[in-house]
Amino acid sequence: MTGACIIGQSGGPTAVINASLYGAIKAAFESDKITRVLGAHHGIAGILADDLFDINAESEEDVELLPFTPSAALGSCRHKLKDPNVDDREYKQLLEIFRKYDVRYFFYIGGNDSMDTCEKISRFMASNDYACRVMGIPKTIDNDLNGTDHCPGYGSAAKFIATSMLEVYKDCRVYDKRTITVVEIMGRNAGWLTAAAALASKFGQGPDLIYLPETPFDMYEFLGKAKDIYDAQGGVLVAVSEGIRDKDGTLILEAEREQQGDGFVDSFGHVQLGGVASMLAAKLQRATGAKTRAIELSLLQRCAAHCASKTDIDEAISAGRTAVTAAVNGDTGKMAAFERVIGEDGAYACSMKLIPLTEAANTEKTVPLEWITDGGLTDDFIDYVLPLIQGEPERPMKNSLPLFTDFKRIKA
Amino acid sequence: MTGACIIGQSGGPTAVINASLYGAIKAAFESDKITRVLGAHHGIAGILADDLFDINAESEEDVELLPFTPSAALGSCRHKLKDPNVDDREYKQLLEIFRKYDVRYFFYIGGNDSMDTCEKISRFMASNDYACRVMGIPKTIDNDLNGTDHCPGYGSAAKFIATSMLEVYKDCRVYDKRTITVVEIMGRNAGWLTAAAALASKFGQGPDLIYLPETPFDMYEFLGKAKDIYDAQGGVLVAVSEGIRDKDGTLILEAEREQQGDGFVDSFGHVQLGGVASMLAAKLQRATGAKTRAIELSLLQRCAAHCASKTDIDEAISAGRTAVTAAVNGDTGKMAAFERVIGEDGAYACSMKLIPLTEAANTEKTVPLEWITDGGLTDDFIDYVLPLIQGEPERPMKNSLPLFTDFKRIKA
Repeated sequence: MTGACIIGQSGGPTAVINASLYGAIKAAFESDKITRVLGAHHGIAGILADDLFDINAESEEDVELLPFTPSAALGSCRHKLKDPNVDDREYKQLLEIFRKYDVRYFFYIGGNDSMDTCEKISRFMASNDYACRVMGIPKTIDNDLNGTDHCPGYGSAAKFIATSMLEVYKDCRVYDKRTITVVEIMGRNAGWLTAAAALASKFGQGPDLIYLPETPFDMYEFLGKAKDIYDAQGGVLVAVSEGIRDKDGTLILEAEREQQGDGFVDSFGHVQLGGVASMLAAKLQRATGAKTRAIELSLLQRCAAHCASKTDIDEAISAGRTAVTAAVNGDTGKMAAFERVIGEDGAYACSMKLIPLTEAANTEKTVPLEWITDGGLTDDFIDYVLPLIQGEPERPMKNSLPLFTDFKRIKA
Repeated sequence: MTGACIIGQSGGPTAVINASLYGAIKAAFESDKITRVLGAHHGIAGILADDLFDINAESEEDVELLPFTPSAALGSCRHKLKDPNVDDREYKQLLEIFRKYDVRYFFYIGGNDSMDTCEKISRFMASNDYACRVMGIPKTIDNDLNGTDHCPGYGSAAKFIATSMLEVYKDCRVYDKRTITVVEIMGRNAGWLTAAAALASKFGQGPDLIYLPETPFDMYEFLGKAKDIYDAQGGVLVAVSEGIRDKDGTLILEAEREQQGDGFVDSFGHVQLGGVASMLAAKLQRATGAKTRAIELSLLQRCAAHCASKTDIDEAISAGRTAVTAAVNGDTGKMAAFERVIGEDGAYACSMKLIPLTEAANTEKTVPLEWITDGGLTDDFIDYVLPLIQGEPERPMKNSLPLFTDFKRIKA
């Protein structure tokens, strides 16, 4: 089947979502079945607004910089399509745009919501007899997609988190006065990112306590443990997922807010609000009398391309390539996924496979409970994550600063 | 003069304070005048407590890792000695310890407070006829020491800030929904660190607005400017020093707190407290209706050894070496300092000099007002800072994570 393709990016950005875009673009350029490569400006929202641009018109330099450029070079969105059985107006609009540009291939790089979008579009096009191959390309720092061993974006975020925890550990224990530091890491339902902090503890010095959303967080126990470590050692470093919950499944931050009213009060009577790290730091201050500090890794953890893993970049490129090549060869309704292959020598390799979009859509893969200890992670988790952070790419730099793609986005 | 030396580290850590320690240790090891190299555990506080350790007993590997290890390998403190004319008990204690270990050389790596400490010790020893050479080695990410072109530690922090701003810019403009992001950077009186964010704007894409403590911050004007940019563009990125002040010199955070009572209230009626970035983000939200986000670079900016500048590391080593070599050759009461040398070809070089401790002690060098524009920095600042962030060191790594020194600290 010959025609144009649209590539879109969706959801929260990562350090390597543009590496997947690169793989997809390169494979599309190489295929004689794909006549034109269009970029959806801000994902599905851009297609609906007929806001497409001509990737063929971008410079070779900008394309070659993609694997090292964080965020989404095409722009992203959080637009969720309705159920076509309830309201199919947007699907009809999409079909119109696909017809207008003779789009026969659609590639969407995103997380579980985006795979759901892909799946719905794929079914709608088929039921309207419009021949179009639709493929999903995974991305998420959260690493929570089903059907794939891991997700592009996770390895680089994990590497930044582990590296930063090694550094922060050194910093927060530097004084003769002991302190307690609480670092807040992304992940509302899955603790994969926070778990990566365990790499620092394993291969150097890292958090004394690590808490994920997967197991109930008991405030009383936590304060007791932290106090014991504080009394025994020269300080405490804690890593927590933003999504830690109590035994009833209520976010700790919400549970505390309910208990204390609209604001938290620190020991000076100042009202406090913020993330879960700030709240825990205030509680620890009251429990121990220690100087405490809260750090949120915030956007830094998902855009730290300067700390990206070569393995992650290479795999992200492969995912993009695999999806496009498979579509050209006749596949549709699938997502490119990773399968871990451990050689006889124990060496890690990653092979590409295709899974049905339905397998990845709208589900969340969390950290196996048997990998979570009381305040830490087992070596099974370390074995899982370690290969994903390996390798330093040759990062393009100028003036000792990273060089990034800056797409001109010329309207199609 | 032959005898033992004590080396101490003081004040807030940096990515390269251990590089200066490395330079000092190596020069001390090489000198036949220095019989023993002692580390002060937590700076002057450790000397007072007779808590010294034997650097000669540390492994070669740990010593060789020092230039790449953030924080202070000897431990740091914030102890300030009293005026010896008012209370000289601590000085007498120091003298006793110096006598006990036959210490004839004292090297203190720190900022302006530490240079003051050095100066007082130097004078006290001289007036008590105890022969001891005292030298200061500069360090501070704040870059606020007088008498030196720049300070070890600043270049690496500046590089991390510029790199992160390039990345955050990409991330915070990724969605179709526009957002405003405010990044808070260290610096209570001097804006050197925040100014480094201008590197991102100059050599890629960076903050739309940058505010330093050196010039009065006008809230009304700021909100107006930010709103104009928000209306005209796809988002706004702001970088502010934690120390921005109003026209009366009052910290903006304090001025707002006074106006609004003990807590800030966001548009949902939630009380808020935190850094200046959170406060500005809440104000911007009310002024524009935009989704806003506050990011504090916090400790990350001072311990990000993974983003250190080779120039900074090399110069920090030189500063340590210079101080020790000069002391062995008879100097005392001085600080190693940097002089910028611009070659005929315009190339940057840094030569070492010695300045009196009194010149650096207790003063603060701020960003020249003529380098500060309305919400940004001039190219004169860029020319100043650019050489300081240059070069990537060969960072020792294992498992794709940084390897750091972990001193055994065996008691002397």
